[in-house]
Amino acid sequence: MDYSKTILDLLKKSSVKIGDKILMTKSEKEYSGIVMPNTGSSECIVLKLDSGYNIGIEIDEKTHIKKLSEEAHVEGKMVSRKLQRIEKLKFDPKKPTIAILNAGGTIASRIDYRTGGVTPVFTSEELVSMVPELAEIANIRCKMVFQMWSEDMEPEHWQILAKEIAEEIEEGCEGIIITHGTDYLHYTAAILAFMVQSLPIPVLIVGSQRSSDRGSSDGAMNLICASKFIASSDFSGVAICMHANSSDNSCYILPACKTRKMHTSRRDAFRPINSKPIAIVDYKSEKIEFFLDYQKKDYKRKLILETRYDKKIALIKSYPGFRAEQLDWYEKNCNGIIFEGSGMAGNLPINILDDHTKHHKDFLEKLKKITEKTAVYMTSQCIFGRLNMNVYTTGRDLQAAGCQPAYMIPEVALVKLGWILGQTKDPKQIKEMMEKDFAGEIIERSELDEFPPNDL
Amino acid sequence: MDYSKTILDLLKKSSVKIGDKILMTKSEKEYSGIVMPNTGSSECIVLKLDSGYNIGIEIDEKTHIKKLSEEAHVEGKMVSRKLQRIEKLKFDPKKPTIAILNAGGTIASRIDYRTGGVTPVFTSEELVSMVPELAEIANIRCKMVFQMWSEDMEPEHWQILAKEIAEEIEEGCEGIIITHGTDYLHYTAAILAFMVQSLPIPVLIVGSQRSSDRGSSDGAMNLICASKFIASSDFSGVAICMHANSSDNSCYILPACKTRKMHTSRRDAFRPINSKPIAIVDYKSEKIEFFLDYQKKDYKRKLILETRYDKKIALIKSYPGFRAEQLDWYEKNCNGIIFEGSGMAGNLPINILDDHTKHHKDFLEKLKKITEKTAVYMTSQCIFGRLNMNVYTTGRDLQAAGCQPAYMIPEVALVKLGWILGQTKDPKQIKEMMEKDFAGEIIERSELDEFPPNDL
Repeated sequence: MDYSKTILDLLKKSSVKIGDKILMTKSEKEYSGIVMPNTGSSECIVLKLDSGYNIGIEIDEKTHIKKLSEEAHVEGKMVSRKLQRIEKLKFDPKKPTIAILNAGGTIASRIDYRTGGVTPVFTSEELVSMVPELAEIANIRCKMVFQMWSEDMEPEHWQILAKEIAEEIEEGCEGIIITHGTDYLHYTAAILAFMVQSLPIPVLIVGSQRSSDRGSSDGAMNLICASKFIASSDFSGVAICMHANSSDNSCYILPACKTRKMHTSRRDAFRPINSKPIAIVDYKSEKIEFFLDYQKKDYKRKLILETRYDKKIALIKSYPGFRAEQLDWYEKNCNGIIFEGSGMAGNLPINILDDHTKHHKDFLEKLKKITEKTAVYMTSQCIFGRLNMNVYTTGRDLQAAGCQPAYMIPEVALVKLGWILGQTKDPKQIKEMMEKDFAGEIIERSELDEFPPNDL
Repeated sequence: MDYSKTILDLLKKSSVKIGDKILMTKSEKEYSGIVMPNTGSSECIVLKLDSGYNIGIEIDEKTHIKKLSEEAHVEGKMVSRKLQRIEKLKFDPKKPTIAILNAGGTIASRIDYRTGGVTPVFTSEELVSMVPELAEIANIRCKMVFQMWSEDMEPEHWQILAKEIAEEIEEGCEGIIITHGTDYLHYTAAILAFMVQSLPIPVLIVGSQRSSDRGSSDGAMNLICASKFIASSDFSGVAICMHANSSDNSCYILPACKTRKMHTSRRDAFRPINSKPIAIVDYKSEKIEFFLDYQKKDYKRKLILETRYDKKIALIKSYPGFRAEQLDWYEKNCNGIIFEGSGMAGNLPINILDDHTKHHKDFLEKLKKITEKTAVYMTSQCIFGRLNMNVYTTGRDLQAAGCQPAYMIPEVALVKLGWILGQTKDPKQIKEMMEKDFAGEIIERSELDEFPPNDL
């Protein structure tokens, strides 16, 4: 999309081209940054600030711009670290082989300042030229699977990724890294742990909270720590590898079904929920410390691939004022529903008093009708801690209406139910499978004490 | 509800009455506890275990029961601490007066072991007989407002509470404590901060994670710390007072609009989100330490009471596979919608690829239609951190479709939108009010670094 004539004229007057660094003055405020291509429709110049973020600044008659430098090509930490052109990687038989599946997000992408576009990394050579340390740790075999943001991932993408994992194992490797957008990374980690069980080797999902053009980018270190962990430990199974804290010194290996993105921007946004991390990997040394037991690598172990998935499921969060009528669509269109209820008992507002007395019966009656043909499970919006639906009357009423407790965090309960419903519609089997621990998803009572402690 | 004949016969055979403590043997397992009245419909004896929890144990021919003691009357920490019958409290003019509004939950309730029922505390004398320390700190004036679980609270209840606060201030007091169920306590705290502004004195919402019959009950300490804080500090405004950690040594005073129940069962479940606590109150000493600035007490300050609320609002959490069609009911029935989108950009799955390409337009078209007559705001399911909808294309597309960022946690954005829509339906005014900080609800960039740190 081109800029408006007014903006193009202003740029031309100051001999500024897209990609140049400028100083812009408007209403006594100053902005310095690189002029990006137009991404909106309004009368704004889009600037990439030094922070790495883009802003659109509306221009008026008094806006003044001044060129600071030509085509700035500011290259971020990850891109610039030791940027080199690698024609062909040599295979080293003494090193393990790691297969890297590029499933999108910012991590395995490069930003082109002339177009403003994000370019995915397609080949092993491209990735190693961005993060040359990888080639020192292992033989890298890259494959482009998707180029997409993680919030757009659908069950079909999970199924493709699961099959890609099986293929890479078939082809032979010591471990797999999946590069992935962070927004819904924890959903993908959880479903892959269900779809690909009994893994002979590790499969680590790795993301980047800050893009490669920002000084604080975490992508390279997350990739290096994941590769080190694969090369130096005997862990097998699906896990997440992301920053352990906001310094660049270590990464956590996090349980696939007990991890959640808990911060919009921090590099250590992925936190273990109701669990310790599996391990911590030191960035600068060879040190790996384990906190949990795990299944060891066994190249002879046969993996179990079960990718069927029923998309007719939903996750519904309750809140004060939630009404039975809101369930109409779900009643008609879902084979499974996960509620995010309140507190320990996973309560829903079913006992509304005063002029709402009517709702009590409405809600339970509605629920009874839904559970006749739909699997309905409860989780807690507290996120941390285990459900107990037997303590309060409301929880018992809900159970009597066919809503059962799921001892998992809501996100994991959702994908597990979709996975189960892909295999069976038999209520007894569904219940047995929801209660069975397939991939470390069940919150144990003993884990109640894992909790983010005080800030102070 | 009576027990079945089989159970009544079994109890009779062993001369066991409801309220007696028994030892029950079934399939080589032993259970000891107090026989509670029947609360379910199945063939179960309900036992209150020493942990304070009730369990139902199904009986069969081999089940054996033995009476251990008659009408056990096990009294919990809070009830038994210094249980005394107080006929009439004496007014001490040297002490401040605290008004306590009982709005339900387990905190200001007593459990009757003979009936299994929870009895609310109605009078100041009853409360002081449970927690006699309160009378040493202040003159206590109690009022029963509701007896209900917090998950059943409706906007009408919030309105009543707001008006009760105004009345108590009118009548004269140095501070107000609202005893409240914990499940949706943070929703009530937030809405009261909007409904009752410019408070001359403190209003503290206090709950109890464990009921008064359990050894680990936290209710008494939370009440004592809240009273101390009111009596010894010059703070004014709405805040929450709950355990600071899982020891019985201090309580946090937490910001009304930046706190969330983050654990199903821990006593320190209420955590500050994107903020420090306001203060910490030592249980055993007089020590109070502040971490944030606050508005000081001023008995002459006139409070602003604005209790109008539009209930036609909804909170919707997105997830992989979320569909535009799910918004049908909300389109028809809501004046306001808060989305809990993914990550930093609050993304919704609008760019679905492959066979779903169609959904991209569907979703944005649907959203455009909805935002023509409905206020739609985005929050992040990360909970911690601030939204930035300008970083990614999806966020910009959503904004172009009329979905604006709300820089608040989802629960607070919901009640704030209901409160605003109660006052105006003018889109410009709504936007201005959503962006204005009324009660410390806006997440500032500088607060990004407040985050639950590592467990280890």
